[in-house]
Amino acid sequence: MGVVLPFEDKSSDPEASLDALVALVSGGMDRVNAMILSRTGSEVTMIPEVANHLISSGGKRLRPILTLATAALCGYGPAEGERDGDVKLAASVEFMHTATLLHDDVVDESDMRRGKVAARIKWGNEASVLVGDFLLGQAFKMMVEVGSLRALDILSSAAAVIAEGEVMQLTAAKNTETTEDEYLAVIRAKTAELFAAACEVGPVLAGRPKSEVAACRSYGMNLGIAFQLVDDALDYGGTSADLGKNVGDDFREGKITLPVVLSFRRGSDEERAFWRRTLERAEIEEARDLDTALGIMRRHRALEDTIERARHYGAMARDALALFPKSPMKEALLEAVDFCIARAR
Amino acid sequence: MGVVLPFEDKSSDPEASLDALVALVSGGMDRVNAMILSRTGSEVTMIPEVANHLISSGGKRLRPILTLATAALCGYGPAEGERDGDVKLAASVEFMHTATLLHDDVVDESDMRRGKVAARIKWGNEASVLVGDFLLGQAFKMMVEVGSLRALDILSSAAAVIAEGEVMQLTAAKNTETTEDEYLAVIRAKTAELFAAACEVGPVLAGRPKSEVAACRSYGMNLGIAFQLVDDALDYGGTSADLGKNVGDDFREGKITLPVVLSFRRGSDEERAFWRRTLERAEIEEARDLDTALGIMRRHRALEDTIERARHYGAMARDALALFPKSPMKEALLEAVDFCIARAR
Repeated sequence: MGVVLPFEDKSSDPEASLDALVALVSGGMDRVNAMILSRTGSEVTMIPEVANHLISSGGKRLRPILTLATAALCGYGPAEGERDGDVKLAASVEFMHTATLLHDDVVDESDMRRGKVAARIKWGNEASVLVGDFLLGQAFKMMVEVGSLRALDILSSAAAVIAEGEVMQLTAAKNTETTEDEYLAVIRAKTAELFAAACEVGPVLAGRPKSEVAACRSYGMNLGIAFQLVDDALDYGGTSADLGKNVGDDFREGKITLPVVLSFRRGSDEERAFWRRTLERAEIEEARDLDTALGIMRRHRALEDTIERARHYGAMARDALALFPKSPMKEALLEAVDFCIARAR
Repeated sequence: MGVVLPFEDKSSDPEASLDALVALVSGGMDRVNAMILSRTGSEVTMIPEVANHLISSGGKRLRPILTLATAALCGYGPAEGERDGDVKLAASVEFMHTATLLHDDVVDESDMRRGKVAARIKWGNEASVLVGDFLLGQAFKMMVEVGSLRALDILSSAAAVIAEGEVMQLTAAKNTETTEDEYLAVIRAKTAELFAAACEVGPVLAGRPKSEVAACRSYGMNLGIAFQLVDDALDYGGTSADLGKNVGDDFREGKITLPVVLSFRRGSDEERAFWRRTLERAEIEEARDLDTALGIMRRHRALEDTIERARHYGAMARDALALFPKSPMKEALLEAVDFCIARAR
């Protein structure tokens, strides 16, 4: 039932995949996965149940992968002793992400998440809120164990910024007149900040100079923005099998994303009235209105241009890494950017 | 409309108040309040609105007071430089508490909190979840600024334990056969742990030896248990003006607290059927059933004995401080225990 839209291929590598990156960090990720499993343990059986429902439903674990990868890029790795700062911070990052998803489902009243019934449907809103809080607490405990105050500062600041971004989105929700800048401020905070923090703690752990820390942060931030923009486009153009959710979820939930922002601004009075009715007033006639929305987006090239914007941030992410010498890890991180954008095809 | 129950007065000081303690930390609390105000600031206007709705509705701020007091008891105070570790940790503790209240309201579906309309009613569940997350993030940021890894460890562990306790309560909810031990495990985690952590970070900041750290933690833990037990009794016997909530709220919400646990165990088959109907199956006929519940509790001295249990933990809290030399702060902390119990009169 997926609607496939023809995007022009401007990516440097349309066949890009995450395989190289995944292979380079596979040893570390095994340890991250073991850490995740052990830290969701609790005598309160509902906690591992809920946590594992989401954790085992298999996201790509892109964020913890990025922590391991940037740490390795900067030379952090097992020294004489068993160093596991990267593993613990990577697991913390994934816990922060999972906690956000659990809380998001409550906020969005979602029924599905990653192609499975949302935890809140299965165990109730209460469980989603509280298990999210538990995971956040465990994340901070792991960070404290690592003992780097700078890493703690980065990740706790990110937690506050993410929540702030979510509230911002709540406030801006249903406003079809949201500007592109306002929308970018929201996704910077609620999505890209965690990518940035995940990448920033790598060089911090490795004790690298400021310029490398800033480079990795910039890579993560721009990759995160590109990632979210592609997600926004996919929501109107992907296939349900790909994303674990159906085309048009954002539309049905009245979410204002970049494809809508662009379509609204470029549209006729009549089209604007359509967006106001469907997204602001939530008066939607399922199938027919989604088709109309897709038609308007096609007319204004809103999806193509959303991807085009993503390419811009992807290019910034690539350039951020320019100061690092050539290495397999660097190549893999660059390919990850292309992969994030190539998903849109 | 309050139902006043006659409790025997076994407290050493029925006129005990918090005044001495409040006076001793008043300078620090001014700085804590200023810190709280500045850290709830955000360009996203909904955040200070929601946060201040709850923060300014004037709880006693017992938890941050305890952090300042135990720090001072152990000799931490403004040295040559401006030391504000106690102030920042105290504000963090209050933020953690406020975040818990916001999330609790969502979990309990409460309509009132501290005598005001609950934030979730005014701004929605979403805002309560997300502003709670924001405050938690800000709390961790402040802790990181203080720079004590041990304090960070204590407070982040507390955050995980509190959430675990809340989930435990969720799982145990509506089970009238809950044992006293099981109930204690829940309130240790969800209430007393934060009291314990708030008191433990004081001596940690002051760099005091293990015995004093353990003493302050034990004081906080037992005070917290006593505090919660008295709260449980007050819910069935206080006046609405005192608590900002009406008598019988726990009953109407089907909460299993110690007065119920004791009444159920000591009761007849008929009485047990009553508790099962009203609390497990939530079939309540408002006024009449609450009167019946109060009658059963009176018959089994459930409220008096709940207070009696609180006195036991209060005594443990007092003894925990025995190793500290006599000082005005120590006296004030001891009086605070009496005050917590004397509230029940």
